[in-house]
Amino acid sequence: MGVIAGAANKKRASAAAGLAASLEVPHHRYWAPDRRIVIEGVYPEIDGGRYPVKRRAGDSFEVWADIFRDGHDVLAAAVLYRPAGETEWRRAPMRSRDNDRWSGSFRLERNSRYHYTIEAWTDVFASWRRDILKKIDAGQAVEIELAEGRQILERALESSGRMPAQVRDRLRAGLATGQPSRSHPLLDEGLAQVLAEHGPREDVSCYFRTLEVFADRPQAVFAAWYEMFPRSQGSDPTRSATFDDCIARLPEIRAMGFDVVYLVPIHPIGRINRKGPNNTLNAGPEDPGSPYAIGAREGGHEAIHPDLGSLDDFARFVARCRELEMEVALDFAIQCAPDHPWVKQHPEWFTFRPDGTIKHAENPPKKYQDIVNVNFYGPHREALWTALRDVVLTWVERGVRIFRVDNPHTKPVPFWEWLIREVQTRHPDVIFLSEAFTRPKMLKVLAKAGFTQSYTYFTWRNFRQELTDYLTELTETECREYLRPNFFANTPDILPPFLQKGGPPAFKIRLALAATLAGVYGIYNGFELCEGTAVPGTEEYLDSEKYQYKVWDWNRAGNIKPFVSAINRIRRENPALHEFLNLRFWRADHDNVLFYSKMTEDRENIVFVAVNLDPFEAHEATLWFPIAEMGLSDPDAFEAEELLTGAKHLWRGSPQHVRLDPKDNPVAIFRVAVWKHVDYRAPNA
Amino acid sequence: MGVIAGAANKKRASAAAGLAASLEVPHHRYWAPDRRIVIEGVYPEIDGGRYPVKRRAGDSFEVWADIFRDGHDVLAAAVLYRPAGETEWRRAPMRSRDNDRWSGSFRLERNSRYHYTIEAWTDVFASWRRDILKKIDAGQAVEIELAEGRQILERALESSGRMPAQVRDRLRAGLATGQPSRSHPLLDEGLAQVLAEHGPREDVSCYFRTLEVFADRPQAVFAAWYEMFPRSQGSDPTRSATFDDCIARLPEIRAMGFDVVYLVPIHPIGRINRKGPNNTLNAGPEDPGSPYAIGAREGGHEAIHPDLGSLDDFARFVARCRELEMEVALDFAIQCAPDHPWVKQHPEWFTFRPDGTIKHAENPPKKYQDIVNVNFYGPHREALWTALRDVVLTWVERGVRIFRVDNPHTKPVPFWEWLIREVQTRHPDVIFLSEAFTRPKMLKVLAKAGFTQSYTYFTWRNFRQELTDYLTELTETECREYLRPNFFANTPDILPPFLQKGGPPAFKIRLALAATLAGVYGIYNGFELCEGTAVPGTEEYLDSEKYQYKVWDWNRAGNIKPFVSAINRIRRENPALHEFLNLRFWRADHDNVLFYSKMTEDRENIVFVAVNLDPFEAHEATLWFPIAEMGLSDPDAFEAEELLTGAKHLWRGSPQHVRLDPKDNPVAIFRVAVWKHVDYRAPNA
Repeated sequence: MGVIAGAANKKRASAAAGLAASLEVPHHRYWAPDRRIVIEGVYPEIDGGRYPVKRRAGDSFEVWADIFRDGHDVLAAAVLYRPAGETEWRRAPMRSRDNDRWSGSFRLERNSRYHYTIEAWTDVFASWRRDILKKIDAGQAVEIELAEGRQILERALESSGRMPAQVRDRLRAGLATGQPSRSHPLLDEGLAQVLAEHGPREDVSCYFRTLEVFADRPQAVFAAWYEMFPRSQGSDPTRSATFDDCIARLPEIRAMGFDVVYLVPIHPIGRINRKGPNNTLNAGPEDPGSPYAIGAREGGHEAIHPDLGSLDDFARFVARCRELEMEVALDFAIQCAPDHPWVKQHPEWFTFRPDGTIKHAENPPKKYQDIVNVNFYGPHREALWTALRDVVLTWVERGVRIFRVDNPHTKPVPFWEWLIREVQTRHPDVIFLSEAFTRPKMLKVLAKAGFTQSYTYFTWRNFRQELTDYLTELTETECREYLRPNFFANTPDILPPFLQKGGPPAFKIRLALAATLAGVYGIYNGFELCEGTAVPGTEEYLDSEKYQYKVWDWNRAGNIKPFVSAINRIRRENPALHEFLNLRFWRADHDNVLFYSKMTEDRENIVFVAVNLDPFEAHEATLWFPIAEMGLSDPDAFEAEELLTGAKHLWRGSPQHVRLDPKDNPVAIFRVAVWKHVDYRAPNA
Repeated sequence: MGVIAGAANKKRASAAAGLAASLEVPHHRYWAPDRRIVIEGVYPEIDGGRYPVKRRAGDSFEVWADIFRDGHDVLAAAVLYRPAGETEWRRAPMRSRDNDRWSGSFRLERNSRYHYTIEAWTDVFASWRRDILKKIDAGQAVEIELAEGRQILERALESSGRMPAQVRDRLRAGLATGQPSRSHPLLDEGLAQVLAEHGPREDVSCYFRTLEVFADRPQAVFAAWYEMFPRSQGSDPTRSATFDDCIARLPEIRAMGFDVVYLVPIHPIGRINRKGPNNTLNAGPEDPGSPYAIGAREGGHEAIHPDLGSLDDFARFVARCRELEMEVALDFAIQCAPDHPWVKQHPEWFTFRPDGTIKHAENPPKKYQDIVNVNFYGPHREALWTALRDVVLTWVERGVRIFRVDNPHTKPVPFWEWLIREVQTRHPDVIFLSEAFTRPKMLKVLAKAGFTQSYTYFTWRNFRQELTDYLTELTETECREYLRPNFFANTPDILPPFLQKGGPPAFKIRLALAATLAGVYGIYNGFELCEGTAVPGTEEYLDSEKYQYKVWDWNRAGNIKPFVSAINRIRRENPALHEFLNLRFWRADHDNVLFYSKMTEDRENIVFVAVNLDPFEAHEATLWFPIAEMGLSDPDAFEAEELLTGAKHLWRGSPQHVRLDPKDNPVAIFRVAVWKHVDYRAPNA
């Protein structure tokens, strides 16, 4: 098997042109007569139903649509929905809002994929009732109309076998005789209500697509991540730390307030072409290599590096995390070291060159000699895809429910869509984080295809306008429906210039932004120590853990662990910060000050954050609090408690002045309590 | 058959909930491995491919999409398209623009429905070539790469059987030996071009939808309509005029510059409950009734009112129109008079009440006693729908290719979608105009469902902001792709207050707006005479032709026929006015002055229109001509010829002053000629 693919590819080529036609909904089904009622403009719906939207289990899910038909008859509609695996549709009533727009909602009771669509129908009795009332009011004769209404009622009674006896009785009562007036038994309001539920429905029309919403567990929406290299959690710089060393660190990580401990790959590391310190080409015999060069004679993606411990040790690590109410996230990096067992066991999964050597990863002229990529489209595609899925399922069985996926954008999108669905169909609680630091459309399509969370460009957005623009895109354009950001302030690959140059104030600023802008955020260890030394002119850490053992002094001078703890505590205590899409920006009269809010829907919890984006100098700014949105009307007063210092203010009116000094604290987080204004001139109002 | 439907409806109700599922594209087809290349964000595409877009035959059709895949390989893509009835896809190359966005275009050669979709693939040779060039430039060894390139070339040669001999020769030349450098025969630029066309393609992926574009004939996009009551084209107020009277009027209508003569219904008129003058309930024996109460013992929708003449007379009318390069548009109004032959022949198509009487049309408490509606959803639905389609086809056979459809929003949308497609599949040149003066979403969905043109709210938009807003919606939101407005300045049902009150200046203003804002526009006869007398407090014409014979003096004092002729001549002579979507509004420093332009794409024809929207008073305004958009750069001069007066101006710079006096002429139409600025300091530039 070489770079030149064989028959499989040719077959694909000839088949592709015919595919579109074969996948089409037959057009004649669109104008089928059983779609008399127009149902369109459905929200939410991504790419015409191509992709699911994302929501949180437990939340209410609102569905909107334009619903109308010819003529003037009275319509009714319902959202039809069912969790994956169920065959019966449940129903949530919709109601007309304005200009033919309807909405309805249902609760996403559990962590599951749901299907939903919309059904609408003509309410025969309500149409009849509205018309006869207009005629009665206009003084017209309505005897025949009453006979027609009686027929409708009789029709309802015909099919009343399954109805409760009291409903049947209520229907029968409508058949009593009466004068042709508004007080006729047929026109009774209670009867109308019964018939809205049990009366005849005509023109029953269904939206022509079934849509999907995936309800993730709450931890997919709100969590603080801590990333670490397990082998560098010990105290001996000449050898690997163990899971026991990692376990020893967990209480401290928990004390800082983190929810997820994310481990870079824990598998055996290849020896062929192993990288040395600072990404050099020839590793010495003691160099551990990059954990992203996965696989050696000790095993591949399902094995654990023997230096870290055994599967049992790993199990203890997972258990200890659980005791501390934390979760483990593992790295899923598909590339293999040249000595990964699969290369010998399944050479058909790899690409070999005309000279018989295996093809290394490359991005010419750059070469990645220590890894080889699987060929996702070789003739044994199915076996390979299944094996990769089973790697994930194996770790799921070992208690891992979160996977951070390395470079998903260098693997086929359909593969991810397939794999994530395969896993989540069995385990809807599994969370996938996409590390697609790449072009925006690829970043987004991976989120659409199923990734629960996404790394974003946040890591490189430092200034007010670019932060506002980017967050506005994430919270107010369509991607809000499917892309859930995980704001990492740094990663083993990214030490941004802002952190290299800004010292501890910069670390505080970036931590506060990540933790209060997004619901899910993370740091890579060393951040809390304000580690900021880079390979000059790059965003790479100097002496990076990626290529060597490292020993950290977790309590070294200049650390900001108390600040990290405080931020995570504030996040935990304020439900408004558990959301992402409730983010709103407000006016601050200084270009270096970013001012924004998050509020719970009931406005019981209102948080404002003001950040001085300049790590060097103190700035003063007037913050313009949005009086109307806070639920108080000027001149009402409000109490603002700064949660980092505990200072309380009794403020009145929109503009309020602050000073943010990076040396002291570049961030202010105000929790607002609204003091209701009582007008004593109207004490009973 | 009564208001209570029987088994058919119950069956519908129970089937509907299952429909959505049965219509779905199976989700597993979305992430099929043969979709490695992501193709999304396709433009144009309405409601996820649910509806066709509209274009004009002869025009170039641009298709855009986001196209990308994992990794860094070189992609190529093509638009696949075919007119209805053909099975082979034609191909138009796409090219990458920016940020993974691609576009390609093809010519809509004929008046037909077209299907289109997108195919993309990995260009194996181009990917290889790009990479080896980078390696050569970096001084890396490339012997194995050259062997790989040779393999690709051999693969191309394997399948070269169908290629021209010179292509095969060109490919073979690449197999010559050479040094591993940029000058190696495999790296020849010409060879690369041949392989782009004939080289191996991998990952061939097709967009998962086939989309539709309907290419209408040009008259669907540009035409001036003249509406008239045939029976009122004569000189005797006591009896119906004939088609011969109508024929006599055609030269005058042509002289005014109209392209389409639209006749209100020409069928026999019912006698039962016939309406009298001014919509009174009891017609006298000589009253002709409303032509919209269709059908009597003389025949129904396929018959001609005997007072107008015979089928032969009608044929002569059609032929005479054709001689004068005009077309006939007929009214298609589905309601029936109670004595329509169908009521006896097909009682199953109508609704009867419990007392055995037929149900009249009504919108309670309003009653329309002279018409009855067919029941589109009775048990004989198919026969009824077919009969209605055949009415249209009958008139098509009689030479009519344009149908103005009366109140389509009171008939089911699926019916129209079916009927229009049935007709246009046989006769793509048939144009349907939707008279849906109703809520916006219904108005729009009828356009989506297939109506070629739509009546709009233009008739009630008088002031600058509302005109600008509405036209911006029509030209710049998604409806531009499917809704083609036909701006009627008045109709037999609508004499707007602006015309009632504004006198001849108002008629000039509205005519100029309709004719220069939209590509297709129309007036209802009497407009050119400035007929403005309404039933007080309504928009109804007093003594409306709808209910009585009328004799017009077509040359009566105060008519604006010369103005109408001039406007239509200007339209005809200026290609920029043949379009609609090229409309742009510009700044005018007076709230009563609307200022806009239309330009051809090549800017060979540039027209600016300034309209004083106030029919009472003269206003002066500074018009701000958009220098950059006109293709000249300040301080270039431009010649502006006012086309109604012939006055010429040599203007320089953006702001220019005009005075528009409704008594004289409330409208100025400037054709701009750009005088190219020559810098004599650089005479050869």
